[in-house]
Amino acid sequence: MTATTPKFIPARRTEVEPARVAAALQQIAEKIGQDRVLTGDAGEFRDPFQPAEWDAFSTAGVVQPDSVEDVQAIVRIAAQHGVPIWAQGQGRNNGYGGAAPRLSGGITVNFRRMNRVLKIDEELGYALIEPGVSFQDMYDAIESSGANLMVSVPDLGWGSLGGNSQDNGLTYLPYGRDFQAVCGIEAVTADGGLLRTGMGAMDGNESWNLYKRSLGPTIEPLFMQGNFGITTKLGLWLMPKPEAITHVHVDVRRDEDLVPLVDTLRRLRLDGTIDGVPCILNTLLIASTIAKRSHWYDGDPALPIPDRQIDAIADRIDVGRWHLRFALYGDRNVLALQLAKAEKAFRLIPGSRIRSTTTGADEWAALSDPSDRVYAGVPNLDWKDMGGWYGGDRGGHMSFAPVAPLTGRKVYELQRWMRDGFERSGIDHTADLIVVNARSLVSVAGIQFDIDDEPATAAAYLAMQNLVREAGKIGYGEYRAHLQFMDLAQEQYGFGDHAYRRFVEKIKDAVDPRGIINPGRHGIWPGNLR
Amino acid sequence: MTATTPKFIPARRTEVEPARVAAALQQIAEKIGQDRVLTGDAGEFRDPFQPAEWDAFSTAGVVQPDSVEDVQAIVRIAAQHGVPIWAQGQGRNNGYGGAAPRLSGGITVNFRRMNRVLKIDEELGYALIEPGVSFQDMYDAIESSGANLMVSVPDLGWGSLGGNSQDNGLTYLPYGRDFQAVCGIEAVTADGGLLRTGMGAMDGNESWNLYKRSLGPTIEPLFMQGNFGITTKLGLWLMPKPEAITHVHVDVRRDEDLVPLVDTLRRLRLDGTIDGVPCILNTLLIASTIAKRSHWYDGDPALPIPDRQIDAIADRIDVGRWHLRFALYGDRNVLALQLAKAEKAFRLIPGSRIRSTTTGADEWAALSDPSDRVYAGVPNLDWKDMGGWYGGDRGGHMSFAPVAPLTGRKVYELQRWMRDGFERSGIDHTADLIVVNARSLVSVAGIQFDIDDEPATAAAYLAMQNLVREAGKIGYGEYRAHLQFMDLAQEQYGFGDHAYRRFVEKIKDAVDPRGIINPGRHGIWPGNLR
Repeated sequence: MTATTPKFIPARRTEVEPARVAAALQQIAEKIGQDRVLTGDAGEFRDPFQPAEWDAFSTAGVVQPDSVEDVQAIVRIAAQHGVPIWAQGQGRNNGYGGAAPRLSGGITVNFRRMNRVLKIDEELGYALIEPGVSFQDMYDAIESSGANLMVSVPDLGWGSLGGNSQDNGLTYLPYGRDFQAVCGIEAVTADGGLLRTGMGAMDGNESWNLYKRSLGPTIEPLFMQGNFGITTKLGLWLMPKPEAITHVHVDVRRDEDLVPLVDTLRRLRLDGTIDGVPCILNTLLIASTIAKRSHWYDGDPALPIPDRQIDAIADRIDVGRWHLRFALYGDRNVLALQLAKAEKAFRLIPGSRIRSTTTGADEWAALSDPSDRVYAGVPNLDWKDMGGWYGGDRGGHMSFAPVAPLTGRKVYELQRWMRDGFERSGIDHTADLIVVNARSLVSVAGIQFDIDDEPATAAAYLAMQNLVREAGKIGYGEYRAHLQFMDLAQEQYGFGDHAYRRFVEKIKDAVDPRGIINPGRHGIWPGNLR
Repeated sequence: MTATTPKFIPARRTEVEPARVAAALQQIAEKIGQDRVLTGDAGEFRDPFQPAEWDAFSTAGVVQPDSVEDVQAIVRIAAQHGVPIWAQGQGRNNGYGGAAPRLSGGITVNFRRMNRVLKIDEELGYALIEPGVSFQDMYDAIESSGANLMVSVPDLGWGSLGGNSQDNGLTYLPYGRDFQAVCGIEAVTADGGLLRTGMGAMDGNESWNLYKRSLGPTIEPLFMQGNFGITTKLGLWLMPKPEAITHVHVDVRRDEDLVPLVDTLRRLRLDGTIDGVPCILNTLLIASTIAKRSHWYDGDPALPIPDRQIDAIADRIDVGRWHLRFALYGDRNVLALQLAKAEKAFRLIPGSRIRSTTTGADEWAALSDPSDRVYAGVPNLDWKDMGGWYGGDRGGHMSFAPVAPLTGRKVYELQRWMRDGFERSGIDHTADLIVVNARSLVSVAGIQFDIDDEPATAAAYLAMQNLVREAGKIGYGEYRAHLQFMDLAQEQYGFGDHAYRRFVEKIKDAVDPRGIINPGRHGIWPGNLR
């Protein structure tokens, strides 16, 4: 808690008549079954990290379709009643609002029942899946099929591939690079019709999930962070399992060693020695994956942990101030050369330490380090509690996540700036730099708070608000925004008098004239709600 | 010439009042200068392979802007007069209509004057360019800057990067994979405003040309084969020059050896041994790059060359019935391992021959084989005359180019089917299979004809029409269409009662309500012309 208790009242935006929503829910229940319609207590279909008394972003009811036809029926009924719907996969958008909708009072479409893997093609290395398939589901389906394939996964394996990919969610294996895994989607449009992207726009075309473009404009990326349809099927590229994986961990001792660490990584990433999505974590991020703050530090929770104590925590964990993790994939003879090259390059950073292990497929599921398991495509939940830094059982976090050029100087400047912003609000700076390609990274920082401490939570929200706004002024924009800050984050993209937003709003009004699909997602509202 | 002379009259579609166009051209000349407005004889701004007497796809005037402000002025004037414009880069869309517009009687915007390389960033490996920059311009700019970078190029280096990439044009180096090279565009919208995609939507955001997505829906791929704006700047990823390149050529003797050739390539492509965009050429395609048909065969031009003569031509050139070309990029020690693995795999095909050479950067510009130069990123025009298979000086061709799954069986079946279709029309089957990623290829076949032989040209057009229609019935769609066949090619994408086209038409009407930008491109017409 800070000395003066900050005020933060999130805007509860509801512009739906409850009677219309109730009528729509009733009609949906008649169509798809009462047991697939959940009303009353939102239960888990809310933001798990929001104080209950705020009551922002709340759903009027959750419907769980079982088929494409169910989704079409839901959309048609919602359109008929003019009721907004909020589609999600598993509802694990934690850190960005969880299972809650942007606009309160509408209907949530949750895909936990549509979690079938429809096809795994080993020869061409892809799957066709329903939107609720989780990373764990996909992994299990591959393993039980015996196909020599692997799926690119994020740190937590409980989310859906559909939901994650459509929020531009990051995954770490080579196919996570530039969000490449998805190829070909089927979506229900706002009129209840069915659309397929790319070659799927032709009946019987077997290249639907194999080729990334269309004849005519390519529309598939519109569905990523968009609100122009509800995805009901996704093609997903799967990588053949390599002969071996070399897991690499590099630690550097001083905060400013981030500069050569990033520059070395960029050169190895650009020249193809390293593929996939490496990740750079700071000491406190790693500490948060192991235990709560109070385990590491007994100082005032309202004051950030000072540098020398962070050094001490690093020593206790035996990591650096910055820790780089990545993996190499391929034949053992090539891996040995790539590893030697990478080791030679990172050793030029004074005080650096490089550790590596090389493993074959039969070892991956049993790897002890959760990071190593993630880079081996084995979903897990080991880091599930990393958000619980402050307070008792109920720790929460929000992610502030700007994109930055992959140069040591820019990345380090940004970290200094972010840490300063966090610490001015009395919040420790945990950093997770996700290197999405060879030229840029997403700098994810978890703003952590104790959910049961309302003033501390409010302070965290205020800190986030300031960070989004101030980052925009110096040219840094979020890759993905929390529900509460979607409008503000989008507002920062002001080039050409907000030409991007105005262009997208025109599309929104054209393809969803009643404004029923995910209104407000990432700051894009339909005409009737602008 | 076939025995019965076929009739083919291309539809000349003109729905613009000449007086309005003249007024617009006059106003544009006043704004950007009379010397930048070309009227009268279309000269080179037409389809170079179309018989002049057909007079389809003809422009009323060509304007050549010199700045973004010029483009904005042109669009505003065109909008004011309701005059359609057709934007292009260099105007080298040969095989698909060349510099001609889809709709006759409008204004062509040609970017040959906007061919400046605005920035080359060696550290982050990218350039920012104007839309008229040709591959040759880009190569020259890199070389004169001294930056250790290379650009992914197609077979002919005269086209623009802007035009080529926005037609989903294929290039062969690693960054050609899945059309990955472009990152971040600036476009003039139909109202004359200026839009930037991705992180460029934020003023001062340095990740514009580094990160592939947006906050909110990703709209950049809408501008590829689209007609929603006119691109005025492009970010372009450039690959660091590797230590060496290994150029590999694999020949197989029999037509049916294509099956194991494709399957072997797919496995090596999927497991990462081979990156980039390999290419498989048949004997006649290679013959066409060397000399005219009459050099190789003295039989009736109206009858296709029989198999045993194709074998004889293969022997004369010393290639196989199918010839695979690709390159490996990296450190010499890794290249040696990758080459050994590839050689071992291809040798399993009985009768196959594998040749390779490994070269360093100082050797690339002087490589004698045009294919090797292309894979080394050195633009050239060596294959410029490959379209002149039949007739005298004025050979023409159109490309029929469906996408296919990368399995030996499917690719071979498609080649048999295409050859059959060509030969029934009396046309030799030249094949160029461009392996755009590890899962699919674009099967480009040049339908060649003698421009001075009008009945033969008409027969070629009829053959193309049949191929596009019949391919659609068996699930194969074109990746890119010739002006004459854009509507027909798009018509084949009928899933969900043409849900894709209807969705895109809604976008078209929303962002370009007067329908002035590239109407009819790839079958997408504005409301007033549907």
